[in-house]
Amino acid sequence: MRFCSQCGQPVSQRIPEGDDRLRYVCDTCATVHYQNPRIVAGCLAVYQQQVLLCRRAIEPRRGFWTLPAGFMENGETTIEAALRETWEEARARVHAEQLYMLFNLPHINQVYMFFRAELSDLDFAAGEESLEVKLFDESEIPWEQLAFPTVGKTLRQFFVDRQQHNYPVHVQDIRYNPGKRS
Amino acid sequence: MRFCSQCGQPVSQRIPEGDDRLRYVCDTCATVHYQNPRIVAGCLAVYQQQVLLCRRAIEPRRGFWTLPAGFMENGETTIEAALRETWEEARARVHAEQLYMLFNLPHINQVYMFFRAELSDLDFAAGEESLEVKLFDESEIPWEQLAFPTVGKTLRQFFVDRQQHNYPVHVQDIRYNPGKRS
Repeated sequence: MRFCSQCGQPVSQRIPEGDDRLRYVCDTCATVHYQNPRIVAGCLAVYQQQVLLCRRAIEPRRGFWTLPAGFMENGETTIEAALRETWEEARARVHAEQLYMLFNLPHINQVYMFFRAELSDLDFAAGEESLEVKLFDESEIPWEQLAFPTVGKTLRQFFVDRQQHNYPVHVQDIRYNPGKRS
Repeated sequence: MRFCSQCGQPVSQRIPEGDDRLRYVCDTCATVHYQNPRIVAGCLAVYQQQVLLCRRAIEPRRGFWTLPAGFMENGETTIEAALRETWEEARARVHAEQLYMLFNLPHINQVYMFFRAELSDLDFAAGEESLEVKLFDESEIPWEQLAFPTVGKTLRQFFVDRQQHNYPVHVQDIRYNPGKRS
């Protein structure tokens, strides 16, 4: 950030009075520009014994497999964001959503939330951001071709929890570079 | 938002190519300025049968009681944000944090997360944003003087769940104006 979004004049980094963090502050109108983490919401869509993965058509990690997920938008709930992304990336409809995994990624200022859900039918297809969309048994998961650590951790946790038929909400921190494979 | 934070020139609202939402886009450098929901994190700090509340020293809702909570900052996890706010507002230390309530407030682009936690000692005090900080039994809760609907809903849920000694994670949507009392 270099300019004030309110008045168009230059900003500089300083600690505002009564604050204890560096912020972008407008040198002219004194507006403080706060920056906050963003939420990525998505679904672990399950059909019988299988889970739904999308092969990414876009960077980063083009060609690698992911759970449908993306940035939550203003005006929606976390579940609405997860369902929208599942529709956009996998043209899939799901139901019975339950919050399942919450990942903190403080080094990139993101919070991931994955909801477990039931795939409503087999009428799914690759959306614009996907090359292909496919159901996988546990034994077929392309572990070496997953796009992000959050995806692998969610799948591994799911196959563990499934043995007990018990799916508590898990909160985990990921502090390394998620652009690298876990 | 009126000006581009990258180049300082005017922005206008339009739907970028390949998008389906109105965004602020720079008329000069074409930067798209996304806006996303923010996370508010806080603690329901418990000591034996009592819960810790803060009376707000700042607007909105000055003079009303709240759970310690505030906007999550870049570079921290949701739990770190909740612990920091608990320290800043109540000068209280807690441990054994568990995610408990997640509220979607889509009309104000916020997601609240409250963690249940054990108060570590009785050495708490009003921080700069609080007039006073106090432990309350269930029968003493100032229900008519709570600052926000998220606070009342969290406390009511806690007293229900406590009877069963079972505290699942709850996800709720609040779609009305949280400036008004529930």
